[in-house]
Amino acid sequence: MTSKKDLNRDKRELLDGVVSGNIPFHKLDNMTDKKAAVKIRRYSLEESYGFDFDHIQNFSIDVEEAGKKNIENMVGVIQVPLGIAGPLKVNGEHAEGIFKLPLATTEGALVASVNRGCSVITRAGGANVRIFRDLMTRAPVFKLENVVSAKEFSDWLQDLAVISRIKAKASETTRFGELVDLQTYVTGNTVHVRFLYDTKDAMGMNMVTIATDAILTLIEDEFGAVPVSISGNMCIDKKPAAINSILGRGKTVIADVTIPADIVEERLKCKPDTMVEVNYRKNLLGSVRAVSLGYNAHAANVIAAMYIACGQDPAHVVEGSSAISTMELTRYGDLYCSVTLPAMAVGTVGGGTNLGTQHDCLRLLGVSGSGDPPGSNSKKLAEIIASAVLAGEISLVGAQAAGHLAKAHAELGR
Amino acid sequence: MTSKKDLNRDKRELLDGVVSGNIPFHKLDNMTDKKAAVKIRRYSLEESYGFDFDHIQNFSIDVEEAGKKNIENMVGVIQVPLGIAGPLKVNGEHAEGIFKLPLATTEGALVASVNRGCSVITRAGGANVRIFRDLMTRAPVFKLENVVSAKEFSDWLQDLAVISRIKAKASETTRFGELVDLQTYVTGNTVHVRFLYDTKDAMGMNMVTIATDAILTLIEDEFGAVPVSISGNMCIDKKPAAINSILGRGKTVIADVTIPADIVEERLKCKPDTMVEVNYRKNLLGSVRAVSLGYNAHAANVIAAMYIACGQDPAHVVEGSSAISTMELTRYGDLYCSVTLPAMAVGTVGGGTNLGTQHDCLRLLGVSGSGDPPGSNSKKLAEIIASAVLAGEISLVGAQAAGHLAKAHAELGR
Amino acid sequence: MTSKKDLNRDKRELLDGVVSGNIPFHKLDNMTDKKAAVKIRRYSLEESYGFDFDHIQNFSIDVEEAGKKNIENMVGVIQVPLGIAGPLKVNGEHAEGIFKLPLATTEGALVASVNRGCSVITRAGGANVRIFRDLMTRAPVFKLENVVSAKEFSDWLQDLAVISRIKAKASETTRFGELVDLQTYVTGNTVHVRFLYDTKDAMGMNMVTIATDAILTLIEDEFGAVPVSISGNMCIDKKPAAINSILGRGKTVIADVTIPADIVEERLKCKPDTMVEVNYRKNLLGSVRAVSLGYNAHAANVIAAMYIACGQDPAHVVEGSSAISTMELTRYGDLYCSVTLPAMAVGTVGGGTNLGTQHDCLRLLGVSGSGDPPGSNSKKLAEIIASAVLAGEISLVGAQAAGHLAKAHAELGR
Amino acid sequence: MTSKKDLNRDKRELLDGVVSGNIPFHKLDNMTDKKAAVKIRRYSLEESYGFDFDHIQNFSIDVEEAGKKNIENMVGVIQVPLGIAGPLKVNGEHAEGIFKLPLATTEGALVASVNRGCSVITRAGGANVRIFRDLMTRAPVFKLENVVSAKEFSDWLQDLAVISRIKAKASETTRFGELVDLQTYVTGNTVHVRFLYDTKDAMGMNMVTIATDAILTLIEDEFGAVPVSISGNMCIDKKPAAINSILGRGKTVIADVTIPADIVEERLKCKPDTMVEVNYRKNLLGSVRAVSLGYNAHAANVIAAMYIACGQDPAHVVEGSSAISTMELTRYGDLYCSVTLPAMAVGTVGGGTNLGTQHDCLRLLGVSGSGDPPGSNSKKLAEIIASAVLAGEISLVGAQAAGHLAKAHAELGR
Repeated sequence: MTSKKDLNRDKRELLDGVVSGNIPFHKLDNMTDKKAAVKIRRYSLEESYGFDFDHIQNFSIDVEEAGKKNIENMVGVIQVPLGIAGPLKVNGEHAEGIFKLPLATTEGALVASVNRGCSVITRAGGANVRIFRDLMTRAPVFKLENVVSAKEFSDWLQDLAVISRIKAKASETTRFGELVDLQTYVTGNTVHVRFLYDTKDAMGMNMVTIATDAILTLIEDEFGAVPVSISGNMCIDKKPAAINSILGRGKTVIADVTIPADIVEERLKCKPDTMVEVNYRKNLLGSVRAVSLGYNAHAANVIAAMYIACGQDPAHVVEGSSAISTMELTRYGDLYCSVTLPAMAVGTVGGGTNLGTQHDCLRLLGVSGSGDPPGSNSKKLAEIIASAVLAGEISLVGAQAAGHLAKAHAELGR
Repeated sequence: MTSKKDLNRDKRELLDGVVSGNIPFHKLDNMTDKKAAVKIRRYSLEESYGFDFDHIQNFSIDVEEAGKKNIENMVGVIQVPLGIAGPLKVNGEHAEGIFKLPLATTEGALVASVNRGCSVITRAGGANVRIFRDLMTRAPVFKLENVVSAKEFSDWLQDLAVISRIKAKASETTRFGELVDLQTYVTGNTVHVRFLYDTKDAMGMNMVTIATDAILTLIEDEFGAVPVSISGNMCIDKKPAAINSILGRGKTVIADVTIPADIVEERLKCKPDTMVEVNYRKNLLGSVRAVSLGYNAHAANVIAAMYIACGQDPAHVVEGSSAISTMELTRYGDLYCSVTLPAMAVGTVGGGTNLGTQHDCLRLLGVSGSGDPPGSNSKKLAEIIASAVLAGEISLVGAQAAGHLAKAHAELGR
Repeated sequence: MTSKKDLNRDKRELLDGVVSGNIPFHKLDNMTDKKAAVKIRRYSLEESYGFDFDHIQNFSIDVEEAGKKNIENMVGVIQVPLGIAGPLKVNGEHAEGIFKLPLATTEGALVASVNRGCSVITRAGGANVRIFRDLMTRAPVFKLENVVSAKEFSDWLQDLAVISRIKAKASETTRFGELVDLQTYVTGNTVHVRFLYDTKDAMGMNMVTIATDAILTLIEDEFGAVPVSISGNMCIDKKPAAINSILGRGKTVIADVTIPADIVEERLKCKPDTMVEVNYRKNLLGSVRAVSLGYNAHAANVIAAMYIACGQDPAHVVEGSSAISTMELTRYGDLYCSVTLPAMAVGTVGGGTNLGTQHDCLRLLGVSGSGDPPGSNSKKLAEIIASAVLAGEISLVGAQAAGHLAKAHAELGR
Repeated sequence: MTSKKDLNRDKRELLDGVVSGNIPFHKLDNMTDKKAAVKIRRYSLEESYGFDFDHIQNFSIDVEEAGKKNIENMVGVIQVPLGIAGPLKVNGEHAEGIFKLPLATTEGALVASVNRGCSVITRAGGANVRIFRDLMTRAPVFKLENVVSAKEFSDWLQDLAVISRIKAKASETTRFGELVDLQTYVTGNTVHVRFLYDTKDAMGMNMVTIATDAILTLIEDEFGAVPVSISGNMCIDKKPAAINSILGRGKTVIADVTIPADIVEERLKCKPDTMVEVNYRKNLLGSVRAVSLGYNAHAANVIAAMYIACGQDPAHVVEGSSAISTMELTRYGDLYCSVTLPAMAVGTVGGGTNLGTQHDCLRLLGVSGSGDPPGSNSKKLAEIIASAVLAGEISLVGAQAAGHLAKAHAELGR
């Protein structure tokens, strides 16, 4: 048991108050400085549970900053090992050049696997990447009297003058964001309205929530429709859903590469047609039979690792897992590989992007903070991540085609 | 630019080799000690990119350990802020009592939100939790000649003597795991076989991959069916899928609580029927109209935060996002809330559970390492996480019912 | 065995030719009149199989007409029993008044069930109905070189001048139809383009196929993209699919009604809240847990019966089965019921609408042939069918709430 | 206006009573003979609407029989044109030999298309067919107190003695049917129990409803769980759903064939690899991108036509539409084609199978009535229909590969 001797008398009293239950964790922030509050909470747990933490107290990130934007009741940090894959050549519209990929993960073999894929892609000339759509959504839900009034509401929402006022209202709440479009979905007396925003370099969930909240006021004032909830799950955030797979949310990004047959054989120890076969029976037929929304090998692994490294929201891995991987033989016997990510939510400002370690990783990729023009940094990040996912898919499908999966895990993973 | 003066001459030469491209990152581990390798990689990036990392070098976890099991090409760590929610009373079969929940996140307001839910649940007597199923799967895919041979293969796999030999084969590869069942799915000439294992306190993906690899050999030897891939995506791992929602994967866990009306009003500032209304039009109708597999408010947020804190695989947040939340008015006007998690993949041994900070969190919950009996620790962890998800759902739906969502984010999130 | 004596010598020879296998069925139409061809085919089956048909030869529809537009190798007809449900009061924008519903079915109890629902709705003042969208789609698929050219193609298809030329091209092929919009979906190197048409009173599948075929020529000529198939399954026809549930196909129609509590109790022998409960645990939770696209009790039954009666394509029952039924208690304790049909494909010209018996049914509903203005007849038909589906839902959910389902089937169905 | 002179005075009075609204349609059956009732209803419509029916009065099916089992408020019949495709060679376990397929449809070109597919399959040696599963389901839904009692209920339902009593109870209600298995799915306090029955030659929906009704009584008596509805939509009937795609419902049937390259070229006017390409980008990628449960070209068309011809329930076309079609190049350059139908609901007794014209078609296929052994006739029918679907898929994909779709429709369909 640590002696807690480093606490002065005032703080020792606070600690006693917390341990005795008189002071709740969240009150501490206003009773002492944030650093001390973190320590007192941690000490209180140690006293209550009768053991000492070994590691969570070791950190360098700014407690003030984190406490304002990222965490409540902070007691320390989790350290997630950070590895580097690459170099990876990316031929995007925003990301052009060679990148080293930061991956934060505890899954043995993941970095090595992505690394191998990077090597193959780079040797083949790099990954092509394109962004097809870039809009963040928020969809409140309303209850109307019946389908007749729902139709009137739906018609009203298509009136150009109304839309113009709604856009103006939204723009009052944000410097960067812009309402681009809205879509209406009716179910009996229930109306979901999906607002679509350009949020530039921010992932944008907060921005669109605040803007939509203002719009709700306008709608209540002008039309009289009562919002049941500012989010009615047709947004839809952090849940796998067809609407995002089809219409996109955040960034719709596609990466591909054609790998010459000899590179496949030399680097991946298998033939192009074997990889096509694995991709077909696994990523297509297998996912079809499992009635999955994800037609890929392990997109979620790569996305999770890069999201944690780069201060993105790891719950958005959900949307990333709906990727579609294709592999085809070209007429010349080479291997065409693609990965389509319909709904990638990333940003280079806000969220966890300002925390020390995460900021380090964004700098490594050259995408920290706002881009010039605004939006270009988050697009660049999206293009890099999509290329990394492509690397992961090529490597894992290659390993399964070569029959190496089990062995790789046996050696590296345990 | 740091001067890298702390490197001796040998290591300085290694650094030069890396910077010049002659020594690839992954070779370093065999050329020097692991700690030095981490440093040299980091320095090489700094030299190549012309900037210094500010934070990733600050860590306390064991580099040897991490390098063996969790990461390749390590250069440092990502620090994820760790906050505490709770106390939360859990009435499970494995988790019984009061728990403080470790949540690692960068999403402002999340810990506060879960904390509020914990308070409501605890005041209402605690969350009931039950586990309905606990089996990890791996599903290789085979190509047969045609449907006639596919039927023969399918029939052969239902032969009791064959199944017995398959189980014996699997048991040779693992001390703890046990093959419990197998299911066969045929599509034309393609056969997916889903093997279901009890993996005790391990999440089990590696265990079942190795066991299934052995089974593949037996099948090739005895029946002659050729495996296309050891994973044919009917497992299905880290992709949202109906097969897991329906049949489960990992642990199928359900938590519920009935909250007296007065507690709802006092703590959540709204009425039970308003929360029922929000849950109905958002989590049910909204998700239905989005054609989603997730019928919840933000299960993924809570799962991601607890997974990262507890050394679980964050890519498994995907499966967690398929949770179903229900809210109903009881005949006495109280609020019944439940959350059904069909496919939770967690473990208390292996993966990231041994890393210093993660281990701290598992100890806080009293679930580090193997349980007695084996499997009880991972079940306890699953029950706690499901209860935490329930807390998150109650809090967020309550906030949306009270119209607070936007404001909460405005204050805490930016 | 019939003696076939009614055949003259020439036709007897044709019969011999068919029986001996020298004349295939489809050649007959050009070797004799259509009526004789029907008979000869039927006789040939009787001779080959050694039995006489008892009923298929009894029909009154026009063989010439049917042979031109509806059937090949005709040998007779199937007689499907036709019953009447109603009167049903409909308060639509196109269907206003009292209707008697023609239902062709072999499922005992179905007409009785719909009839009961009609009585309840009519007593409650009639069904409100609104159409929210009315566009038929066809979506060819193209293979491009890679994602770079796919993006160029996608951009080209958003060029206003290009869209204008495409619309002009489409309009050359049809008097009534009109291309309204197009949407582009990219997956790696694969591009699906979904063309959306207003097809007025025609269901429109043929019209949009022909128009899209012309567009393919323009695209090949101008951009050089090669169509793989004129239908790439993002149309998507006669397959259950989220894209149609979300974006609609054909007509998106919603019907609802609020039933006073006393009518529920008197006619349906149960209470409003019991029906709300059944609808919630069955049509919502049950379908959610089954991972279904249909959230209703038996919409497909009513749609199939009305489609067969009215000369619609019975394979389009698939789209109809994706209906969403909601039931809610109003603040006054009455029962609000709705049914949302996202993708109803119906028409009053073309298809089977001109056949004698089917034409009779369309006349009964006052919707045969082209409406004035064009499109109003098919919209009226859609509103009536949606109201009929609502009647079926109310009746079946009511029966299940009253615990009558099994008994009703026992009495009527066997 | 027909003079209705063929009615005698008594019946003329009934007609007046109906027209004036004093006698509802369904009362007529008990006031006169069924044939007269049909006529009086029809006349009453003619008087009310002021027009004469031209065709619905022309029929030969037995009104007594139909009125007892298939229809209420009958007024006549719908005549659906019946065409013949084939011969088709089927190599099933129950259907072995050459069949001529009855197809009732109003969609021009459908019979011709299936016919072409039959010719290709037969030339290639016939379609292999296998049935992998044959169980009809019914799934009542229960509301329990909370998850604790839901777990107890779930455990109770796994008790072998309980299952044995449930099976005995079910067997009291049916001579042929047999309860084979039960599965439990819990969502919070809601429990769905899916009962699986072998229903032999009956499609079985009525049989399983009656048996399950008896089981509900046992469960209420023994455990005290209250059924909310005898069908809780996890059955799931006539709605597209993953549970049926994955676990099957009714018969899971797969048909395939390998077509030599020269037959493809000669008969389908295209190359095997073009058809593989169309199937891949349309039936796989297109359906994936549409988030569809159906991965086929037009299975629903063929199933609808054969179901209507053979007295099956056309609303079950919904389940048939979830078929998966695959096409692959063999190592010899030939074309492997398969169609997987996870949930086909067919029977040769009950439903519409006894009606005159439908019975004619079942006799044509040699499957009318109960098979010997029981179940063999419905299995034979399922094998034939699956082979017919395969023929339809090959023909349509072939047409699209050859670029013929639009032209075929232009010539035949309008």
